[in-house]
Amino acid sequence: MIITEDQFSNYEKRKRANFINCFSGLKPANLVGSIDGNDRTNLAIISSVFHLGADPALVGMILRPDSVRRDTLENIRANGYYTINHVNASIYKQAHQTSARYDTAVSEFEATKLTPQYLNSFKAPFVQESHMKFGVELVEELKISQNSTHLLIGNIKLVSLEEDSLREDGTVDMGQLDPVCISGLDTYYSVNKLSRLSYAKVNKELSEVE
Amino acid sequence: MIITEDQFSNYEKRKRANFINCFSGLKPANLVGSIDGNDRTNLAIISSVFHLGADPALVGMILRPDSVRRDTLENIRANGYYTINHVNASIYKQAHQTSARYDTAVSEFEATKLTPQYLNSFKAPFVQESHMKFGVELVEELKISQNSTHLLIGNIKLVSLEEDSLREDGTVDMGQLDPVCISGLDTYYSVNKLSRLSYAKVNKELSEVE
Repeated sequence: MIITEDQFSNYEKRKRANFINCFSGLKPANLVGSIDGNDRTNLAIISSVFHLGADPALVGMILRPDSVRRDTLENIRANGYYTINHVNASIYKQAHQTSARYDTAVSEFEATKLTPQYLNSFKAPFVQESHMKFGVELVEELKISQNSTHLLIGNIKLVSLEEDSLREDGTVDMGQLDPVCISGLDTYYSVNKLSRLSYAKVNKELSEVE
Repeated sequence: MIITEDQFSNYEKRKRANFINCFSGLKPANLVGSIDGNDRTNLAIISSVFHLGADPALVGMILRPDSVRRDTLENIRANGYYTINHVNASIYKQAHQTSARYDTAVSEFEATKLTPQYLNSFKAPFVQESHMKFGVELVEELKISQNSTHLLIGNIKLVSLEEDSLREDGTVDMGQLDPVCISGLDTYYSVNKLSRLSYAKVNKELSEVE
């Protein structure tokens, strides 16, 4: 079936949000850890983290407009550092619960019983229960004029992951880490490997490397 | 194990790319369709599509630096329209093959035996084999100064999806559409639903809606 912009623009607000949020496809589930000037920790599930480049090692994420207070955004602006922690199937419900509107004084770590972890004196809390996580330094904030969202660009400073999952060629065997992805606003999926494919070349048949 | 920036900066180039590409988490697999001034079609697998906002309906994606010719980027700049097509498990190998360096004169549709489809006079080709796809109008291009990548912001104009997958509340039952996601540069996964969770509220237990 075909649905035009004129049609979905007339959907009721919540229905429209449900619909449009499904269109970018399966989204990575990440928890973003941050800290304020009073050492209060904050944790937020974010589905808009994306790879920006390998050299320098950059990662982007979108945060919503700051027309109301956004603890994660304020903390990152003030402190300059944050952590990105992959959500796995053992903690996805706790991760989802961080999206509730807790007061600034309440740490989502405590409220959801996830454990703050400090690694190598990095100035933001990691999630101990995450199997793959990295510490990031904010290098640029861009405001998207179309809808006043914020693009935060970060430089990866520190990585922590399960040793067995890292292969000699630098790839990480995500299948070992029980990762989850999200569709829309609230539906969580685990994954099954189809295959790892060879580097694509013109006039050469692909092969399954794994 | 902990790996610092100093350590992974010294990885050989390919190993570093493999490593850093894994960090944003599971990525959506999408095929971007475009067309040039001579009606030559182009198709490219892109793993950096992300949701930007529901009202207006905006989607972002990152394209690599234009220091060499990038057909997708040139076509979108010239024509102003493109399509984003979800990759499913039946076509993921063909989708991966579009990443080979075909000459500009060669259509990746033909080379990979995917079928161009034109819907509602939209000025870019869709992928007939995709179960969920949408047509986008370019509204802004931002250059990311950190690494000269390009952020393309598009407005969703037209949506096509399997009728059975659209629910009354606007959500799309992605599980029905056999979607795939990507880890790193080359590893593909299918998904299994864990659950759909209720809207998170403070002091309220989450429930599984589905």
